[in-house]
Amino acid sequence: MIKSPESFFSHSGKSMKRSAIREILKVLTKPEMISFAGGLPAPETFPVEDLKKIVLEVLEKNGPESLQYGITEGDLKLRRLLVERHKAHGLDIALENLIITTGSQQALDLIARILIDPGDYILCGLPSYLGGLNAFSAYGAKLKGIPLDESGMQPDKLESTIVHLRELGRKIKFIYLIPDFQNPAGITMPESRRLQIIRIAEKYNILIIEDSPYREIRFEGEQQKLICQLDTSGRTITLFTFSKILAPGFRVGWVIGNAGILDRIVTAKQTADLCTSAFVQKVIALYIEKGLLEKNLVKTIKLYRERRNHMTGCFKKYMPEGVTWTEPQGGLFLFLTMPGKTDSEAILKKAIERNVAFVPGASFFCNRTGCNTMRINFSYSDLKDIEEGVKRLSEVIKEEISANT
Amino acid sequence: MIKSPESFFSHSGKSMKRSAIREILKVLTKPEMISFAGGLPAPETFPVEDLKKIVLEVLEKNGPESLQYGITEGDLKLRRLLVERHKAHGLDIALENLIITTGSQQALDLIARILIDPGDYILCGLPSYLGGLNAFSAYGAKLKGIPLDESGMQPDKLESTIVHLRELGRKIKFIYLIPDFQNPAGITMPESRRLQIIRIAEKYNILIIEDSPYREIRFEGEQQKLICQLDTSGRTITLFTFSKILAPGFRVGWVIGNAGILDRIVTAKQTADLCTSAFVQKVIALYIEKGLLEKNLVKTIKLYRERRNHMTGCFKKYMPEGVTWTEPQGGLFLFLTMPGKTDSEAILKKAIERNVAFVPGASFFCNRTGCNTMRINFSYSDLKDIEEGVKRLSEVIKEEISANT
Repeated sequence: MIKSPESFFSHSGKSMKRSAIREILKVLTKPEMISFAGGLPAPETFPVEDLKKIVLEVLEKNGPESLQYGITEGDLKLRRLLVERHKAHGLDIALENLIITTGSQQALDLIARILIDPGDYILCGLPSYLGGLNAFSAYGAKLKGIPLDESGMQPDKLESTIVHLRELGRKIKFIYLIPDFQNPAGITMPESRRLQIIRIAEKYNILIIEDSPYREIRFEGEQQKLICQLDTSGRTITLFTFSKILAPGFRVGWVIGNAGILDRIVTAKQTADLCTSAFVQKVIALYIEKGLLEKNLVKTIKLYRERRNHMTGCFKKYMPEGVTWTEPQGGLFLFLTMPGKTDSEAILKKAIERNVAFVPGASFFCNRTGCNTMRINFSYSDLKDIEEGVKRLSEVIKEEISANT
Repeated sequence: MIKSPESFFSHSGKSMKRSAIREILKVLTKPEMISFAGGLPAPETFPVEDLKKIVLEVLEKNGPESLQYGITEGDLKLRRLLVERHKAHGLDIALENLIITTGSQQALDLIARILIDPGDYILCGLPSYLGGLNAFSAYGAKLKGIPLDESGMQPDKLESTIVHLRELGRKIKFIYLIPDFQNPAGITMPESRRLQIIRIAEKYNILIIEDSPYREIRFEGEQQKLICQLDTSGRTITLFTFSKILAPGFRVGWVIGNAGILDRIVTAKQTADLCTSAFVQKVIALYIEKGLLEKNLVKTIKLYRERRNHMTGCFKKYMPEGVTWTEPQGGLFLFLTMPGKTDSEAILKKAIERNVAFVPGASFFCNRTGCNTMRINFSYSDLKDIEEGVKRLSEVIKEEISANT
């Protein structure tokens, strides 16, 4: 037998790390566990009955075509429907500015592949989506975190970091942003802040990756323009997905941006998986065409709003003094901060024993700070589980805080 | 507007090439075109009626679960069914030795990612599958082609190349093989040849990537053991796919090999696409469970055998003297060789004008030889189109040969 497979691994193969979140999720299979950990949509939002009709119609009318290889750019009908839908929402793009990917995780991976050389710097939020950070690191990127305030990434800190890195001769490839209901912080960037960031990106000729999985799940407040709508220099690449507005089990996302950049992403996609499943793309296209997506979104938003309200209500009721949390206007997550030295990794161990789980905040900080924070998902659990889970979690937090004082 | 997106591209982003085959396929949309170019399964083999029942049953019984995120390793039921099926075919593996990928193209990509550092050497057949070669090149691999004879890769040439590269201080990562009905050559390696290659891989401690998409499409002759069945040192990673035995539109493949290597592929898959569509995996699992895959395979093999027979019959009838071709015992392709200086790229241009297409052989030779060869697909076109296509193609070849003499 081969002794150590490690001896065959590439530099990247040796250094890649498992996602902390996906590893936590794997141990949460006990039915009595209440999980606030994953970014899972509520199963109640999956339109199973509508999909039964849709899949039958696709197989009936497009059977052979839906089961064959498709073109790498994505199903033409789905792309056209998405272009039309964006136009209706005020974003005027051509077909060549939109391609389909196998979930938006694939878009993060392919963007990293075509843009990042080992040692290139990526500027990201402190905190920021772990799956994005891991995708960039896998290609040898250096991650530099920029602190957030209540409006998102801080422009002065962003600019001073750019100046500092440039002085050191470092190459900065892009700024990674999640402007709407940020994962994990739940913060939304107002338009003025978006414009500030765009101006900095222009000034220093840096690209912007705008990751927008939650945008359509807004409970309240005014929709902010996309960064790619505000950016007049065409340096923004925006990522969308059906995972949070329809079903993650389909693995379909889409990317909007400069045609020259998308062309290169398509080339990378040819070797990555040839094309995204033609079958699921045709199912989604027909689902949109029949107006069912809009119908289901209304239902999803209503359910998640109710769960967020209940979650923050339970926090107020049960959490000890000194614990604070963000109150997101949409999305799937809120972010909880505990007093100074309270360690969320220690809390997670005890919480799992009491059958409640979350993701420790430090996972999302590329500089490994944020040890006293945690990401809480409010989309997956029902109202009863939310209350019981918050109760259990608040008890562990209380114990940990008093042990530390 | 950003002037040149190229200035942002990584070294890999700048150097990656479009697949010659997928680019040819895109121009072949005219309905009057007879295409022997793609590796497309016959749409007649897609079990549309059976799948209607299956997708309904999946949505009925596993709706929410099939629409949710799945684990990165793949659907547990599908993996168990595949392990059992391999056991029934004489390959005894554990669950940890099998994972699911988004088509076998993703497996090629992820294997390249975890194994290849820029400058590492990969040994491949002359010719060999372009999608594999492009995946390896994308990670900076140097490709070294080893000539084939009628039994596949030549062991003496393989060994002398290894010795030569080692003398030069080069690192060789793996040997890439398609032992059954090789793409594009249509050649099958007999067991004795497989054992010779395994012995060389052991002697020099090199891994073997066994790509096996066509294995189950055998028309005649005796099934040869898989390389991973014969290899007692566990250095073989074997790739399978549902694309040729069920439907490429699902994008589902699987990989068998050393658990330590698969574990690293799973880590890479987390950042590549999180997981393969749970929905299509559950559809395929139920399809297999009901015994429908075996039923459909019988039908597919019968159809392709008939088409191959007709194709080689038409070659005998129409092709000018000096043209030779392989007669594969299975798979989807045969390989045609023309007299010395006849250039298949020049022929393709004229052939497309007459509405028949193929892939020029040089695409499959990493050293860009093989200009007088072409890959012909016999699975996609019906008998009438096969005859008409061969007739048109033979006329162009005849003209090109006489123009050259």
